[in-house]
Amino acid sequence: MRPKSFQPRQEQVNFLEATFRKIFPQDTEYREKARARLEQLTMPHWALGDLMDLAVDLAGITRSLKPPVKRKRVVVMAGDHGVTAEGVSRYPSEVTAQMVYNFVNGGAGINALARQAGAEVTVVDMGTAADLDDLVKAGKIIARKIGNGTQNMAHGPAMTRTHAVMAVEAGIEVANQLAPETDVFGTGDMGIGNTTPSTAIVAAMTGAPVAEVTGRGTGLDDDQLQQKIQVVERALKINRPDPSDGIDVLSKVGGFEIGGIAGLIIGAAAHRKPVLVDGFISTAGALIAYALEPFVRDFIICAHRSVEQGHRAMHERLGLRPLMDLNMRLGEGTGAALAMNLVEAAVAVLTEVATFEEAGVTGTPVE
Amino acid sequence: MRPKSFQPRQEQVNFLEATFRKIFPQDTEYREKARARLEQLTMPHWALGDLMDLAVDLAGITRSLKPPVKRKRVVVMAGDHGVTAEGVSRYPSEVTAQMVYNFVNGGAGINALARQAGAEVTVVDMGTAADLDDLVKAGKIIARKIGNGTQNMAHGPAMTRTHAVMAVEAGIEVANQLAPETDVFGTGDMGIGNTTPSTAIVAAMTGAPVAEVTGRGTGLDDDQLQQKIQVVERALKINRPDPSDGIDVLSKVGGFEIGGIAGLIIGAAAHRKPVLVDGFISTAGALIAYALEPFVRDFIICAHRSVEQGHRAMHERLGLRPLMDLNMRLGEGTGAALAMNLVEAAVAVLTEVATFEEAGVTGTPVE
Repeated sequence: MRPKSFQPRQEQVNFLEATFRKIFPQDTEYREKARARLEQLTMPHWALGDLMDLAVDLAGITRSLKPPVKRKRVVVMAGDHGVTAEGVSRYPSEVTAQMVYNFVNGGAGINALARQAGAEVTVVDMGTAADLDDLVKAGKIIARKIGNGTQNMAHGPAMTRTHAVMAVEAGIEVANQLAPETDVFGTGDMGIGNTTPSTAIVAAMTGAPVAEVTGRGTGLDDDQLQQKIQVVERALKINRPDPSDGIDVLSKVGGFEIGGIAGLIIGAAAHRKPVLVDGFISTAGALIAYALEPFVRDFIICAHRSVEQGHRAMHERLGLRPLMDLNMRLGEGTGAALAMNLVEAAVAVLTEVATFEEAGVTGTPVE
Repeated sequence: MRPKSFQPRQEQVNFLEATFRKIFPQDTEYREKARARLEQLTMPHWALGDLMDLAVDLAGITRSLKPPVKRKRVVVMAGDHGVTAEGVSRYPSEVTAQMVYNFVNGGAGINALARQAGAEVTVVDMGTAADLDDLVKAGKIIARKIGNGTQNMAHGPAMTRTHAVMAVEAGIEVANQLAPETDVFGTGDMGIGNTTPSTAIVAAMTGAPVAEVTGRGTGLDDDQLQQKIQVVERALKINRPDPSDGIDVLSKVGGFEIGGIAGLIIGAAAHRKPVLVDGFISTAGALIAYALEPFVRDFIICAHRSVEQGHRAMHERLGLRPLMDLNMRLGEGTGAALAMNLVEAAVAVLTEVATFEEAGVTGTPVE
């Protein structure tokens, strides 16, 4: 039976397609204007490197030479996973809901890092196995629960195709709801077991051997890692996801929160808002979004490279380079929150640094 | 003749030695206490990686489980270089003083990034070739000018041994002056031509071939790069700096602002304050400080790896890993300012994240 918090919506296919039609690439005129200004700043050419590349992207994304970045928000999508029955995580599924309470109480890693960066945290129940109605009624979380956790993908599809579409749509609707009060989105995830579907997604999308993209998640030992590899291989063999069809991959080897993340990214792109994509699970969501609508890539900023070893293959697939590499592997949006400082810094460079002419500094090299 | 802003001080050797005697390694007890708390946080073990390592360092540096990091300050040391006569920079020496005015007016890269990070910027004239008395009288910069730029190290020592000691002492005194109102120091530099002495320092200290540690600075072409390599090789051959004697290296192939940076690092360590070391020139200063008093290493946080190719050899010499790699090569303390966000984030993790017990989250792995 469907959880009480579920809200069905009509015309699902039309809604997705209508959203895709709102997504255009970055604006080349604003990119060029930003680049022209950055090249005149009182410093050697492009001496702030990646920050300047980021400033050009932000101008192209927002169609502005003063990209708004003040109102920052990390959206943490939560969901549970039937595949935990295969022993792929060191922690029990009940921790997913316990961590949702921890987020709401402000005690988790994402809360601390979001506060540091001046970002809000919004938690969405996309499909936890717990009853979180008390938090929904208290207005502490957004209810978009598709189901009480996915099915075990080692035995069949994680969810129906219909539910996969609904998960992505729910993410878009969350973006639509929050866009009027958000300048920069960050993605986050919570879901015990969710490195396993994310591994299956990257293997399905890139064709990489499963063993090469499977990591230790919350801290598996060697035997548990071998078990996880076998589970992912079995899930791919049984389900045979079609890498050209993002909904097919999501439904067969994905997760509700991963679909929500994909939708959030698509929604952010439709609103021309930058979206900082966090770690391994968030980037799995980005791969789904990218498969559905390749132009979303222009709105994605990859926050960091995680310890999880398949993350690199995801970034290569997207053709994007992460900003940081701090040996993190927490998820929750923690890397996205940290990287919001870099987004702010990039805008500060674009808008606050004087040009050679403005500052009366000799900008002509000695010949 | 000495500039008017110069203030001589007595008992120079005693002052340096007295400062060294105040420098102890990190406190192992506080490191252990911090580690014990971090291991209980509601996340998989050490899942915030480098931020957690940094939090342990900050506890060990400050002897506190709530390391104070609110009052942040980047100290930009400015100086000119006689070696610019050899054509080692694309910009004329006059740009050093022009940039000091830019710093004071808030229009430089460091101003924008310090504002983003909530840090103050303090500019010190360690030895520019310009008369900056108007800025000194207006209280806009600190006057510690040792001389109007160094001598050309391609023909002889950059400065006397006495002036090298004075430069380091001036840096310590700046740290002493600012310590009561500073929790976290950052180092910064301004000095046209100063990648050349920094290259000579890393080559002298590590024995690395000059060609391997020479970069393009502000943007040299291939011919100019070869010229720079030859200038550094000549400076090392003529001066024969003794790598075991930091003052010898500084005096023969260093710079006034590099000595000031070394002193600032030593002074920060004596006050048990963390000091974020910026890019190539700042890390050259750190190598001098480390040669004079190896315990300073425990107080240094390497902010980032710059594009300048000798930077890696410096970090290897120090045995420290930089936090970020953003293809930056500006100096001024810009990387240090950016990394102050990570220092704040590390303290937020240590002080704001709940433990498993506090949050009622199941912390015991499934067996």
